[in-house]
Amino acid sequence: MGEFELINSYFKRPTRHAVLGGGDDCALIAPGAGQHLAISTDMLVEGRHFLPTISPELLGHKALAVNLSDLAACGAKPVAFTLALALPRADKHWVERFSRGLYDLAERHACELIGGDTTQGPLNICITVFGEVPSGQALLRHAAEAGDDIYISGQVGDARMALEVFRGKLSLPAEAFERCRARMEQPTPRIDLGLALRDIAHAAIDVSDGLLGDLGHILQRSGVGATVQTTWTEGSPAISPDLLTLPEARRLDMALAGGDDYELLFTAPKAMRERVHAAGHDCGVPITCIGEITEQPGLRLLDLHSQPLLRRFASFDHFA
Amino acid sequence: MGEFELINSYFKRPTRHAVLGGGDDCALIAPGAGQHLAISTDMLVEGRHFLPTISPELLGHKALAVNLSDLAACGAKPVAFTLALALPRADKHWVERFSRGLYDLAERHACELIGGDTTQGPLNICITVFGEVPSGQALLRHAAEAGDDIYISGQVGDARMALEVFRGKLSLPAEAFERCRARMEQPTPRIDLGLALRDIAHAAIDVSDGLLGDLGHILQRSGVGATVQTTWTEGSPAISPDLLTLPEARRLDMALAGGDDYELLFTAPKAMRERVHAAGHDCGVPITCIGEITEQPGLRLLDLHSQPLLRRFASFDHFA
Repeated sequence: MGEFELINSYFKRPTRHAVLGGGDDCALIAPGAGQHLAISTDMLVEGRHFLPTISPELLGHKALAVNLSDLAACGAKPVAFTLALALPRADKHWVERFSRGLYDLAERHACELIGGDTTQGPLNICITVFGEVPSGQALLRHAAEAGDDIYISGQVGDARMALEVFRGKLSLPAEAFERCRARMEQPTPRIDLGLALRDIAHAAIDVSDGLLGDLGHILQRSGVGATVQTTWTEGSPAISPDLLTLPEARRLDMALAGGDDYELLFTAPKAMRERVHAAGHDCGVPITCIGEITEQPGLRLLDLHSQPLLRRFASFDHFA
Repeated sequence: MGEFELINSYFKRPTRHAVLGGGDDCALIAPGAGQHLAISTDMLVEGRHFLPTISPELLGHKALAVNLSDLAACGAKPVAFTLALALPRADKHWVERFSRGLYDLAERHACELIGGDTTQGPLNICITVFGEVPSGQALLRHAAEAGDDIYISGQVGDARMALEVFRGKLSLPAEAFERCRARMEQPTPRIDLGLALRDIAHAAIDVSDGLLGDLGHILQRSGVGATVQTTWTEGSPAISPDLLTLPEARRLDMALAGGDDYELLFTAPKAMRERVHAAGHDCGVPITCIGEITEQPGLRLLDLHSQPLLRRFASFDHFA
């Protein structure tokens, strides 16, 4: 048995829900009656999606978390995932730690590893995740309507702050850095919130590339525009106290175009306001209203005095 | 829009069967009533699963073919796949050619690309493939029974011959090399045969690591043994004339432990002999009987005189 087959043994826990788990040519699953299967795949490469300094446990967590976040954005319930892993060398200690972080998160969401592939090569992690959503209930990017409120879950900008510290472009007090670093290396997929929003929200997306850029995807596919406030970046549940220490321009960069947040950005009719906040409360996640969907196309960003804010943001240029 | 987002545009053909194709956080599919979803994932790394000399078109073909081969081994009908691709640089010409090879094979099997991910990084291709198989009809590794015949589809050993030439360990006439190289770089997934064998075969596996090694997986999971002949390596539809030019020891290595064949190795009750060969005939694939499943555990290889052949093979050691 080769070293990489031994490595595979770290990923061979028995499955409970799948018809057939790993160890055959295919895994077999049977989605419930009336359920659609939601599928997403993400590939993580060192230096691009994570830094070499991340611990194997947190990398195992993050690799699955960014995939689960896509299920959350569709309002899908996690069911199973496959893992393909290329490793420079068969380092059992590393794999044991990676698999621990991976399984901890997977078990929290009853999401089973049903198959995979391990090979020698430059470090690369590719996870494909499967969730169930009742037919017609998925939250999709094209469903935003004029008059909808625009909401963001949790806090944005922290992950980017940590990245800027790693890049030597920002310095933070040690405690603030540790908080931001945890947000970057151990994002929380908003699964419960996605499920709670199924019959409340119209459109949804998870914020991976930056809030404004990802909002742009919703606008483009829904054929609508948006007016987005920035008052909430001066102090609201969506901004961590750490971010408030930055000068305004940088704070806006981090919050609006930072990326790697894995929060849910969604729209919902005004009549749903109470239910939106109740869903956030039930899930233990703050929800902040940041703007409104408009018939008029384009994205209008307003400053603290409700005047147009005309500066450009990295992931926002193509909507200017 | 970044270069890698542009690259994504090569993989954005509209889907016809999926409920929702690419472009949202998740794709949505709805397996037919009474169908199980068969899922397999394979990661391909340069130098390990393909050589840098392979053309982009053939690499696109091969990356999907090795995944479809897993569906074939389960008797599943291809439905859809996701593609995650890490590329050292955004080379549109390369991607255009890669996508052409990929789509050509995908369309031949009505298998839709429903989602994916493109990123910068060392070349890595990870495909996850989805097929349908009626509940209870999947061909599985654990279903071999004592008394079953053991069959191999097509020809084995050619791909390994080509690899040995690339490694400088074998020389072949130019025409023979081209034939073997085509088998290595452009394998044919035996989808039709897998479907035809659903109610004929017991256990099945696709031969990727070498015939004896992969047979070992069936024996282990079925709790049975096997007697395997080698007379067929002296001349049969399972051996190409090119392979017959090699000395016996090397020929056995290539045929029994070569790998990368992507043929179906399967077992079926003796009462099914006629139907097995009729299935092969209907699918245009030769089928060769190479042995028998036994109650007695272990794998016994017989030489041309039906005497035990005691030498060891690379992917066969752990059954000796």
